Amino acid sequence: MENKPYVIGLDLGGTNSAFGIVDAEANVVATTTIRTGEYRDVDVYVDSCCKALAPLVEKVGGIGQIKGLGIGAPNGNYYNGTIELAPNLPWKGIVPLAKMFQERLGIPVVLTNDANAAAIGEMTFGVAKGMKNFIMITLGTGVGSGIVVNGELVYGCDGFAGELGHVIVDRGPEARQCGCGRKGCLETYCSATGVARTAREFLTKRTDESELRNIPLENVTSKDVSIAAEHGDQLARDVYQFTGELLGRSCANFTAFCSPEAYVFFGGLTKAGNLLMEPLKKAYDDNVQNIFKGKAKLLVSQLDDAQAAILGAAALAWKM
Amino acid sequence: MENKPYVIGLDLGGTNSAFGIVDAEANVVATTTIRTGEYRDVDVYVDSCCKALAPLVEKVGGIGQIKGLGIGAPNGNYYNGTIELAPNLPWKGIVPLAKMFQERLGIPVVLTNDANAAAIGEMTFGVAKGMKNFIMITLGTGVGSGIVVNGELVYGCDGFAGELGHVIVDRGPEARQCGCGRKGCLETYCSATGVARTAREFLTKRTDESELRNIPLENVTSKDVSIAAEHGDQLARDVYQFTGELLGRSCANFTAFCSPEAYVFFGGLTKAGNLLMEPLKKAYDDNVQNIFKGKAKLLVSQLDDAQAAILGAAALAWKM
Repeated sequence: MENKPYVIGLDLGGTNSAFGIVDAEANVVATTTIRTGEYRDVDVYVDSCCKALAPLVEKVGGIGQIKGLGIGAPNGNYYNGTIELAPNLPWKGIVPLAKMFQERLGIPVVLTNDANAAAIGEMTFGVAKGMKNFIMITLGTGVGSGIVVNGELVYGCDGFAGELGHVIVDRGPEARQCGCGRKGCLETYCSATGVARTAREFLTKRTDESELRNIPLENVTSKDVSIAAEHGDQLARDVYQFTGELLGRSCANFTAFCSPEAYVFFGGLTKAGNLLMEPLKKAYDDNVQNIFKGKAKLLVSQLDDAQAAILGAAALAWKM
Repeated sequence: MENKPYVIGLDLGGTNSAFGIVDAEANVVATTTIRTGEYRDVDVYVDSCCKALAPLVEKVGGIGQIKGLGIGAPNGNYYNGTIELAPNLPWKGIVPLAKMFQERLGIPVVLTNDANAAAIGEMTFGVAKGMKNFIMITLGTGVGSGIVVNGELVYGCDGFAGELGHVIVDRGPEARQCGCGRKGCLETYCSATGVARTAREFLTKRTDESELRNIPLENVTSKDVSIAAEHGDQLARDVYQFTGELLGRSCANFTAFCSPEAYVFFGGLTKAGNLLMEPLKKAYDDNVQNIFKGKAKLLVSQLDDAQAAILGAAALAWKM
């Protein structure tokens, strides 16, 4: 096979679809973005993507220079190249997206879910470089995960393995309702929306001062919590304490599964830095089984937020 | 490499060490047993094992006919061939058992923990034949597990992965003390000792009739519970209901990790049959995330109890 110098990475999100043309050293040589949410019809979406890509592809010497397209997408299925029942995308049912792009672009296309793409990005270009066993946890609007065992992504029997955001961590009477239909999923606590929910709970149950009380309760977001915490607001800091603790002891349980060399945390919530990571590390150490103590590193991704997902999708294309 | 027709499998337990000489079709052509607990000195133990093995080896034509020895042992480490800090074995610290056998027998030796050996046995000879993704759960004195992902055992960064018996499933004030030093581990509920604890709890908290009340409370064993349940004793049946439910919803959480094709349950507790498996299946279905519903089979091992562990260890030796 001839040695083509580039791949395309697509970070397909509910709001934007970000494309990057990437070389083998993880340099993003050209990018473009289209607004996912504007396309109710997935055929029109793919056409618009190809149209937006055309000038970029020309810039690097034409489609003959491109090895393939890698896509990271919510509810992406690696085995089938489909997106299945994604609640935050405009397309319903099962969308054969890889096939659609392949037909239009004439290059191989590979697709996986966004957290798996992030894991591949970390393994190829990031802090997990060279690791054979690690767990990627993405802390965004939801909680996603990509699990690498024996150097390979864990896809399971159906392509959907690695849904640690939907491990049930609270079975008590106050367990939170999750978008998946069940209650008490990790995602309802340790995502951006989970942080906002925790803040609203604390504001309701507690009586101490907090600058968050200047915001109408139902409008409090994780961003507000983060700003207040930076100002030293105790209630806001306690929200991160609670979130980090819960995430840390959940990870301690995950370790029993695959004894990873590292956890790599990625996404908006990690911007809280030590406010999140210190309670997380303490709860992990306090809760992990003795034989695993001191083994797994708890790392924060160092990849640039805007490019990490594109790089992950690109790495997937390089691995084809 | 020449084609040797046999391997030796060793099922090393706290009470007995059972050896079998096994051919490639899983026929156990000769067996012998020595009492593990009688050997405080591991050197004397290995010597006695080799002495006990000698006539069996002669019977099949000498050591030249044997490809290798596979050992399944509690706290066995596949990477190092060691047994590390096993609470139920007479030897303390880290025992380089594979090396010790290798030096005395002059054949390759491979060692793993007992639940991993069972998983390899199921994958090679049992109900998981041909499966690339499944979880083996052993329900004995403790709860062990062996996890197969992409056709390979999950050992993790240190050789100790797959400790699902030590996933914490209860963090409430009444969570049970576990032998591992922590509280609320799955093993404290879903093992033989866990079943006996549940029965004693029910007998204390409830006031209804039960034939178990004829036994002094502290003497009630899982065997007693099983006999009472067979007689139709409601309290005893409720113990299995409780155990099955807890195991089922725990497995529903494990599925988020690796979306297995099947769970294979093995060990004394599975003799309760539908008393255990029906609530287990119901709780699994009720608790598993929608995208995984109806996918994983919940199976009971069909391998003969006395030979399954030997076959697993033998399969490990065949895979060398």
